[in-house]
Amino acid sequence: MNIHAKRIKDLQKLLKREKLDALVLARKLETGFFTGYPLEGPVMLVSRSSAWAFMPKMLLADFSSKVNFVRASAPDSLPEAVSAAVKENRLKRTAFEPETESYLRGNLWKKRGFLERKGLSACLRSVKEGEEITTVRRSCHIAAQAIRILKPRVRTGRTELSVALELEDVMQSMGAKGPSFDLIVGFGPHSALPHHETSERRLKKNEAVLIDFGCVYRNYCSDITRTWFHGRPSEEFRKVYSVVAGSHKAGLDSVRAGVKTRAVDAACRDHIAAAGYGQYFIHSTGHGVGLEIHEAPSLSTRSDETLKAGMTVTVEPGIYLPGKFGVRIEDSVLVKKNGCEILTRPSETHSV
Amino acid sequence: MNIHAKRIKDLQKLLKREKLDALVLARKLETGFFTGYPLEGPVMLVSRSSAWAFMPKMLLADFSSKVNFVRASAPDSLPEAVSAAVKENRLKRTAFEPETESYLRGNLWKKRGFLERKGLSACLRSVKEGEEITTVRRSCHIAAQAIRILKPRVRTGRTELSVALELEDVMQSMGAKGPSFDLIVGFGPHSALPHHETSERRLKKNEAVLIDFGCVYRNYCSDITRTWFHGRPSEEFRKVYSVVAGSHKAGLDSVRAGVKTRAVDAACRDHIAAAGYGQYFIHSTGHGVGLEIHEAPSLSTRSDETLKAGMTVTVEPGIYLPGKFGVRIEDSVLVKKNGCEILTRPSETHSV
Repeated sequence: MNIHAKRIKDLQKLLKREKLDALVLARKLETGFFTGYPLEGPVMLVSRSSAWAFMPKMLLADFSSKVNFVRASAPDSLPEAVSAAVKENRLKRTAFEPETESYLRGNLWKKRGFLERKGLSACLRSVKEGEEITTVRRSCHIAAQAIRILKPRVRTGRTELSVALELEDVMQSMGAKGPSFDLIVGFGPHSALPHHETSERRLKKNEAVLIDFGCVYRNYCSDITRTWFHGRPSEEFRKVYSVVAGSHKAGLDSVRAGVKTRAVDAACRDHIAAAGYGQYFIHSTGHGVGLEIHEAPSLSTRSDETLKAGMTVTVEPGIYLPGKFGVRIEDSVLVKKNGCEILTRPSETHSV
Repeated sequence: MNIHAKRIKDLQKLLKREKLDALVLARKLETGFFTGYPLEGPVMLVSRSSAWAFMPKMLLADFSSKVNFVRASAPDSLPEAVSAAVKENRLKRTAFEPETESYLRGNLWKKRGFLERKGLSACLRSVKEGEEITTVRRSCHIAAQAIRILKPRVRTGRTELSVALELEDVMQSMGAKGPSFDLIVGFGPHSALPHHETSERRLKKNEAVLIDFGCVYRNYCSDITRTWFHGRPSEEFRKVYSVVAGSHKAGLDSVRAGVKTRAVDAACRDHIAAAGYGQYFIHSTGHGVGLEIHEAPSLSTRSDETLKAGMTVTVEPGIYLPGKFGVRIEDSVLVKKNGCEILTRPSETHSV
């Protein structure tokens, strides 16, 4: 069976488990995931036994030529068509996903009596299967190889922006479609800003270099951070780097199917806190990575999700000393039954 | 005054005119427009006399180093902080923009009693000023120059994707940050699909070529479509092309400050209908272009907006004959008092 047709079947099983009659989906991320059709526009209605796609007239020919496992049509009003199908098929418990909807469209569904139900497609999307895994892996390998090529070229006098652009070029020459987000290149004190905006600042001798980057390969994102010292590292940098490396290892050691995501966060956070740097780890430990650069699950103090085999997540602890430097070490990993595959370090696997 | 500080002042005047006490803004597009800060995260509250930005802790240092004309802070809860400021300053009529909000955040504002008010920042964004105009113009010039370079290279046997990638490269080599959307390259019958997904199809002799493209230059988008015949055009192609060219000219002739956007749509549509092709013009005539590839105003049958000097909009009529070919001619233009400047044809201006 076509992978997208299979995903619709999986969703239909989930609907049954969740005691829902149908789900309406309107964002490109979800409609694309369930049909393979890459454009914004179609609104899907998936019941336990059928799937419809309503869309603007100008998409219908193209859509129909590519997707033959849902009933496609181009009605005058998309929301009216959804309502009509709901009524005709007596889909009493029809839901929408509040986190995927705009304010205006979400309220349109709400007015029609549809229920709010979070995380259904996010749950299906979070576990990668078959060719998806190969694709995320390739996306990660490209990024990992690119930084190896680039690292020796990061020399005194280069600007952050020139490094970011060259890194993008290298990844594209290896088949990437583009960067998976606005790459962060931070020299010296800029490395202490986790979301620093890459600038024209030039690298000086004896400064930290932090690069947070990734690429999109066939729609799938990768995410890595590497930090090093350009020149002779200070005592403080060595110390902080080794604490973050220990935290990162503790995080990886804790990753396997069945573990709570907050346990991975705790493993990283406790290590940093024990070394006395707790207040300088100012973000969560990681997140899912796939069609989106940030997706389910969340690896944070407050999250209540459980890792499953096939999830691809980041582990990225960091310590940021304002005005001085920051260190973050991030890898994207594939969760396995007894450990994980570090996708962004192709030569290493990690099992416990 | 700093351009962003001026925009906040303009918004404050608009609040007064609209009898509002304050507006809350949370999407990057808007917070970026009003502060220059390029990251997602800050939530702004703008009253008639003040402006606040509440943000996650990890952004505060970076934000504060770049933006000194709003009161920046990193409270524990962003929505609580907004509410507290609203209460403390007695901002009774505080609004949010429903079209810019996600379902979840919009409902958060609604529950706090904020009013829905559409189009305030879209209105400010639609009229370009000063350096913005220079930037959009440059974005358009890059795209226009790139297609001139590329056209002679579109030869028999090339794939649509290879043409799209080369076009992106040429634009990037001229300073563009990237494409302004997934470029559409359609050969032969693919040109009849207005939202065709660029594919591995190869160009054959005697086929239509339609390329809809644009770039992002310093955050500003351009948008052009060019159609031509590769080989010896059929009678039908000649006929259709000349009808679309006439429609496009009629549209441009009608553009000037003070004209209703639907009048421009009517000028294009009437010309095509008069030639007997009305049913094959299956989309609206145009849209604003700026920080977003599609923004206010809309040039369509049902729109009720008026062109103002400084708006940058597209004029893009088309005729699509399913299974045969499509023709679309699109330019981005700057609305002027007595006509328009065709930004995507640097050597021509158009006044009436």
